[in-house]
Amino acid sequence: MAYPDTFEGFAVFDPSPATWSTVKKFEFKPKPFEAHDVDIRINTCSICGSDVHSASNGWRKPNAHYPLVVGHEIVGRVVRVGAAVTDFKPGDRVGVGAQAQACLKCKLCKSHNEIYCPKLVHTFGGVYHNEDGSTTFSNGGYSNYARINDYFVFHIPPELTDAEAAPMLCAGVTTFSPLVRNIPKELPQGQLRPRVGIVGLGGLGMMGIQWAHALGCETTVFSRSSRKCADARKLGADHFIATAEDKDWVRKVEFSLDLIICTANSTQNFDLDTYLRALVVGGKWVNVGLPEAPFSVSPRSFMANACFMGGSHLGSHVEMVRMFKLAVEKGVRAWTDKIPISAQGVKEGLERCRDHRCRYRVALTDFDDAFPGRV
Amino acid sequence: MAYPDTFEGFAVFDPSPATWSTVKKFEFKPKPFEAHDVDIRINTCSICGSDVHSASNGWRKPNAHYPLVVGHEIVGRVVRVGAAVTDFKPGDRVGVGAQAQACLKCKLCKSHNEIYCPKLVHTFGGVYHNEDGSTTFSNGGYSNYARINDYFVFHIPPELTDAEAAPMLCAGVTTFSPLVRNIPKELPQGQLRPRVGIVGLGGLGMMGIQWAHALGCETTVFSRSSRKCADARKLGADHFIATAEDKDWVRKVEFSLDLIICTANSTQNFDLDTYLRALVVGGKWVNVGLPEAPFSVSPRSFMANACFMGGSHLGSHVEMVRMFKLAVEKGVRAWTDKIPISAQGVKEGLERCRDHRCRYRVALTDFDDAFPGRV
Repeated sequence: MAYPDTFEGFAVFDPSPATWSTVKKFEFKPKPFEAHDVDIRINTCSICGSDVHSASNGWRKPNAHYPLVVGHEIVGRVVRVGAAVTDFKPGDRVGVGAQAQACLKCKLCKSHNEIYCPKLVHTFGGVYHNEDGSTTFSNGGYSNYARINDYFVFHIPPELTDAEAAPMLCAGVTTFSPLVRNIPKELPQGQLRPRVGIVGLGGLGMMGIQWAHALGCETTVFSRSSRKCADARKLGADHFIATAEDKDWVRKVEFSLDLIICTANSTQNFDLDTYLRALVVGGKWVNVGLPEAPFSVSPRSFMANACFMGGSHLGSHVEMVRMFKLAVEKGVRAWTDKIPISAQGVKEGLERCRDHRCRYRVALTDFDDAFPGRV
Repeated sequence: MAYPDTFEGFAVFDPSPATWSTVKKFEFKPKPFEAHDVDIRINTCSICGSDVHSASNGWRKPNAHYPLVVGHEIVGRVVRVGAAVTDFKPGDRVGVGAQAQACLKCKLCKSHNEIYCPKLVHTFGGVYHNEDGSTTFSNGGYSNYARINDYFVFHIPPELTDAEAAPMLCAGVTTFSPLVRNIPKELPQGQLRPRVGIVGLGGLGMMGIQWAHALGCETTVFSRSSRKCADARKLGADHFIATAEDKDWVRKVEFSLDLIICTANSTQNFDLDTYLRALVVGGKWVNVGLPEAPFSVSPRSFMANACFMGGSHLGSHVEMVRMFKLAVEKGVRAWTDKIPISAQGVKEGLERCRDHRCRYRVALTDFDDAFPGRV
């Protein structure tokens, strides 16, 4: 069998430490084609930290299921649309992020919070409850095709290449959403711009710095060493702090930042209590990475400036549309290293992502070579 | 020596488990009398959870210092004012809370955030840096007199008795401040009132429920058992949830509360991850108790609804003034059990506070009997 009955992707078969990045071609059945579905021939898929967590079962999900094809920063061309789809036609260049479905009926969906819908289905590793009563396990974008509900498919502006756009679909909107939701609307007298901190310069930080700058914020980047300082400035940072090189760094920013977006992916050796001191009274710290261990934080840290710590998950449809508009208007681009997709390419990409050996995202490309003869 | 050179109070001498609540009369030197100081003859001091934490050194402060007189919910009469004091005159009935001083010059003080001033001095257990270069350890309100900077002294409205007002000076403003700062200003279409949760019905909860109600919020109270349900309703609660009596309680409130004020004083057996599910997307959880152990919370809990967890410390001068106005307008009153002050009375009060054996605050009264012959 072949498309449209089966899809094919590079799957992880065993998440153990020795084999988590070893993928093999794997044929799988996509969900049944429904009226709102869009089939996409994938041309680029960039590698998100979630791909690494999921391939290695780092989050220890009780329902983790292998073989699993990961990947949720997908750009491709529409090849088929369901009867109810009005926004897309075959040939359109489109993107898909980490969410593939929601009920679109509950109060969360109705208030542009479909990312928090209890029935959301992630692009990979989730379970579709189909209209015919069946269920289908979702597989991601290291594949020849994707089948996605049209509300979660987005037009890619012609100004962006596939690889410049792909990381925006997860890393981009994941940093954009908490910024537009939490940048203060009113500023104290005398303060001209909101002050935003971005912790960590990896795939998420690379996007977050650009959005904060494009949204008019005075932007401070925190990184352990000064190695990435020049890149941070190129991305739009006004200030750069190398936390491991300056013991007293917090004194420079104490009580000064309105909002900090933390892209760190680990809670290990992470001095949250000190970081929180950088916030203004009532300021907010938002985690967008999803570390594998719980946070431990002293109640006193919140008392010192009435600050808040929170999290954020992806971004909504309306935020995705607004984000691509801003990217075009302000020249925001994802920076990627390209690797042609293959079993070897995926392995290399996943391992470079885990080890932070990229500037600042790996994009898997050349899907026509790995999947010849597609429609 | 006697007043105004020395004050006298009931002090804890040894914070160990066997002796933390055993107090003895103790003479101490107050700070030097400066131009902005107000001397107060104390008539009532109610007992705050902080008194218990401090008497037993539960927070394990490295600079804890004994003998220590605790108490920071003070009502009394002005007996003397410094040369720069314009708002008070001898005979005025006034109150003092947990803050006795701040620099009043920094950007925090200038923006009505003097409670977060790095130079703040707490009413007891702090250190004054005096104008003459000396330092003085601060002692609290289980005493004959208090000497406090006039910015931290407040007129008590005639509508309130001493005991009805005293708990407002700490428990009151500590719950009032995070409410007025965090109740959402805009509501989704169709929602008539902000929805606020109050976790715990003790001294703080007793005040918080009344403020939430007085501020026009739909108020839900969370308590372990239904024992306090009738009191919660009398205080203004619209809804009451007994979390230990209904395993599925969270389903009733999931994604529904805009703000939760948590008055719990311990992190033990406290299922924060479940509570956070009660918040709307972007909703806020504010801790006003100060547990002795750190919080542990899963990063996933914040991802499920982009909620925030924070803390809050006391309340500002302008909030204190606004709070007393609201109390008069809406009939808010602290509920107290009264105990005449004495070594035995303090011991009983501290132990009842620790064991939650009061409705819902203990007020130490009859100071004239314990401290005869005052000016």
